[in-house]
Amino acid sequence: MDRNLALLKVKEQLTDHRYTHTLGVMETAIRLARKYGANEKKAELAAIFHDYAKFRPKEEMKQIIMDQKMDARLLQFNSELWHAPVGAFLVHKEAGIEEEEILDAIRFHTSGRVGMTLLEKIIYLADYIEPGRHFPGVEEVREIAEKSLNEALIKSISNTIFFLMKKGQLVFPATFHTYNDLIMNSED
Amino acid sequence: MDRNLALLKVKEQLTDHRYTHTLGVMETAIRLARKYGANEKKAELAAIFHDYAKFRPKEEMKQIIMDQKMDARLLQFNSELWHAPVGAFLVHKEAGIEEEEILDAIRFHTSGRVGMTLLEKIIYLADYIEPGRHFPGVEEVREIAEKSLNEALIKSISNTIFFLMKKGQLVFPATFHTYNDLIMNSED
Repeated sequence: MDRNLALLKVKEQLTDHRYTHTLGVMETAIRLARKYGANEKKAELAAIFHDYAKFRPKEEMKQIIMDQKMDARLLQFNSELWHAPVGAFLVHKEAGIEEEEILDAIRFHTSGRVGMTLLEKIIYLADYIEPGRHFPGVEEVREIAEKSLNEALIKSISNTIFFLMKKGQLVFPATFHTYNDLIMNSED
Repeated sequence: MDRNLALLKVKEQLTDHRYTHTLGVMETAIRLARKYGANEKKAELAAIFHDYAKFRPKEEMKQIIMDQKMDARLLQFNSELWHAPVGAFLVHKEAGIEEEEILDAIRFHTSGRVGMTLLEKIIYLADYIEPGRHFPGVEEVREIAEKSLNEALIKSISNTIFFLMKKGQLVFPATFHTYNDLIMNSED
């Protein structure tokens, strides 16, 4: 799908603020794809559509998670997680994106998963470090991303876990397992 | 078992430094047991024996983990974890302690587990805050322990996870799950 058409489809799903964020993720994802040897076109599309379901009503997302027999544990955890797997489903259904690689990058962009692909890592990280992001620690992750995709990912996931724990919130198990998986593989 | 006999059995397994630590854990565990309504005698014994296997050779611990069909994933993680389940086994076999509650408190004193008992929580926490412990954050956990056992446990487990992640080390999955379990139950 052409970039402009994709952006058009996404724009109507998002607030202006979130659309601007999406443009930042897109630019960052393309840059990371070039740097780390991923398919730039796929990175572009996955980035454009990553937050497609962000503003769907919670009830609709919940229904989709149940109807599509997605991981039911999602419903026990923060609803902020839901838009990622629901987004993958809707981007396929409504926007006609069929490449599983792209859909997986959307599906796992908030939780991560064990065995993340290069494209999944790029979208996760681009979402975290795009230029519109301003929070403690983001600059450090940006710097690490210039040297190592895995190290930057480990840092961003650790930061996310710290952030949730400091607030006394639940952490989705896949995020924990992703951390260990990345550590195990970077020790190889 | 009488306190003095228990201490005698443990003393020969430990360095002086670790024996002093054990006395601190014992005093703290008894105090917490009194405060939170656990069996003081069981807390005393579990505390005395909690580090029983601390100085066993790694090869011996590894062998016991395999022979006794303990969680084999332990072997992939930091060997610091091994002395807890191996300790429970040896305390039963060599010191003749038979109460499962006491053995479980020893078994889970480093990793935690989902559904920790009151006694397990007390030993975990006493090990973390006994007066001989000096590290960043311990004083805060001591203060929280005066008000809430669960909150103190959540804080100590979060601190441990932060500490491991800062060093880029693996975190044993049971520890993650314990965190979520405690958060879920304190939200009830």
